[in-house]
Amino acid sequence: MGTRDRIIDAAEQAIHEYGIAGATTKRIAKQAACSEALLYKHFAGKEELFLAVLLERMPALAPALTRLRLGVGQGDLAANLVEFTGKALEFYTRAAAVAGGVLGDPPLMAGFRSMLAKHDLGPHLPIQALAEILRAEQQGGRIAPGIDPGAAASLLMGACFHRATLTHFVDLPDDDATWAASIVQTLFRR
Amino acid sequence: MGTRDRIIDAAEQAIHEYGIAGATTKRIAKQAACSEALLYKHFAGKEELFLAVLLERMPALAPALTRLRLGVGQGDLAANLVEFTGKALEFYTRAAAVAGGVLGDPPLMAGFRSMLAKHDLGPHLPIQALAEILRAEQQGGRIAPGIDPGAAASLLMGACFHRATLTHFVDLPDDDATWAASIVQTLFRR
Repeated sequence: MGTRDRIIDAAEQAIHEYGIAGATTKRIAKQAACSEALLYKHFAGKEELFLAVLLERMPALAPALTRLRLGVGQGDLAANLVEFTGKALEFYTRAAAVAGGVLGDPPLMAGFRSMLAKHDLGPHLPIQALAEILRAEQQGGRIAPGIDPGAAASLLMGACFHRATLTHFVDLPDDDATWAASIVQTLFRR
Repeated sequence: MGTRDRIIDAAEQAIHEYGIAGATTKRIAKQAACSEALLYKHFAGKEELFLAVLLERMPALAPALTRLRLGVGQGDLAANLVEFTGKALEFYTRAAAVAGGVLGDPPLMAGFRSMLAKHDLGPHLPIQALAEILRAEQQGGRIAPGIDPGAAASLLMGACFHRATLTHFVDLPDDDATWAASIVQTLFRR
């Protein structure tokens, strides 16, 4: 395992244990058995390192979108969407703690925001990717013409992100599978 | 203005300036011109103080829900829901930084979670309140029978919470009013 991967693993572990606030580069470097100077050779700052954790260690969303894209026009659409909803929920449950920690730290947030803008990245992109898939399904006649694919993607992803955050704060009364089925059924009803 | 209100104002200001991580009781007490001991007479801990900020200084959601409840069966339902969506977006944009900061700090999160459970509170309650209103509108025939009111409430609130979080990270391409109209139109289409 290379140094870069060791550092990303150590960062993920530190975020899990101490939160973003306590995941200092000193702590991360020590856990990765490297110097802080070496850490900064691989990552310009905490922003870049946390982005790598999000993109490289919490990969449930990209493969789930790919699977949904490859399944356009095939199989049972409601079942495909319920499966995707479960994967999105799983991804956001892990990502929420990182995103939240960044949000709760104004200087880190400012750096993170600049970095995303510079690289044309952002947490809104998965909504756009889902909207494109829904548009393709609509063109194939499997989604009602009255649905705006962009709005439907915002609603579905938003519900998953919100629920993932809620589960950190409270024990929800209903189980995820029942919830996912009712969300998909209500949103895509014909 | 009483001491309690001064402390809550100071906490809101400190969260805005330094984030949850930097909003120490020392800093808050100094800003409120009181001792830390006096702060702890009013609030058992940061958890209670931050909850008071959420409930007493960011009140856009409760009045918006009341307005929607009082409007059941009256006026233009889509317009009422679009107005509510705007208010929810406004509330969550301010609340996201507090919720995120709590999420990013595991010990604070654990305390916050226990406190919510003890008082039967939680960020899922507004979804339940919205679901009841939607159920009443459905019984009055203004919402399609195929809609599950609980699922629709999850979708609408989730989309608002997600978008509010996204706006902290990136400049979104579409404006809020257009977005709110398309969300309501897609979700409640007949």
